[in-house]
Amino acid sequence: MSLWRLQCFIALAGELHFGRAAASLFITQPALSLQIKQLEISLGFELAHRARRVTLTEEGCRLLPYAEHVVAAAEVFASAAGERGRLQAA
Amino acid sequence: MSLWRLQCFIALAGELHFGRAAASLFITQPALSLQIKQLEISLGFELAHRARRVTLTEEGCRLLPYAEHVVAAAEVFASAAGERGRLQAA
Repeated sequence: MSLWRLQCFIALAGELHFGRAAASLFITQPALSLQIKQLEISLGFELAHRARRVTLTEEGCRLLPYAEHVVAAAEVFASAAGERGRLQAA
Repeated sequence: MSLWRLQCFIALAGELHFGRAAASLFITQPALSLQIKQLEISLGFELAHRARRVTLTEEGCRLLPYAEHVVAAAEVFASAAGERGRLQAA
């Protein structure tokens, strides 16, 4: 599991579209697909159904809030670290 | 920032000793030192004083609870994902 892959999953869950989710992360669609696939392999199950319209699997729906919690905590850490950086630079 | 580097930082903060912290993570001391150094480079400041006795810097002390929150959230995610895996295998 990596923070980046969780961010990719959250973006896909938000857009339900590989192209738009990739664009929102400023990466290519194949790069996003690879990250999602690698996350799914590490978990051992699929997070999204790849049909004409993307939908989350039951497991994807269930894990989404946990993933959001991890990424939110990481953003708070980064913010706390960055704030100090700015203070130091001042 | 990576989950693994945050885990390394938390282990060092817990042991205040590179050798013991590395052992607790089942990695070598140089590997731990590298992870801590890379985290410090990405943050732009030091997290630990490397003297005869390791101590956390002011920034290290301040960021430790944020790091612990991220890793705890990641462990909850992994646990939620693993539980489902076990349910699926049953």
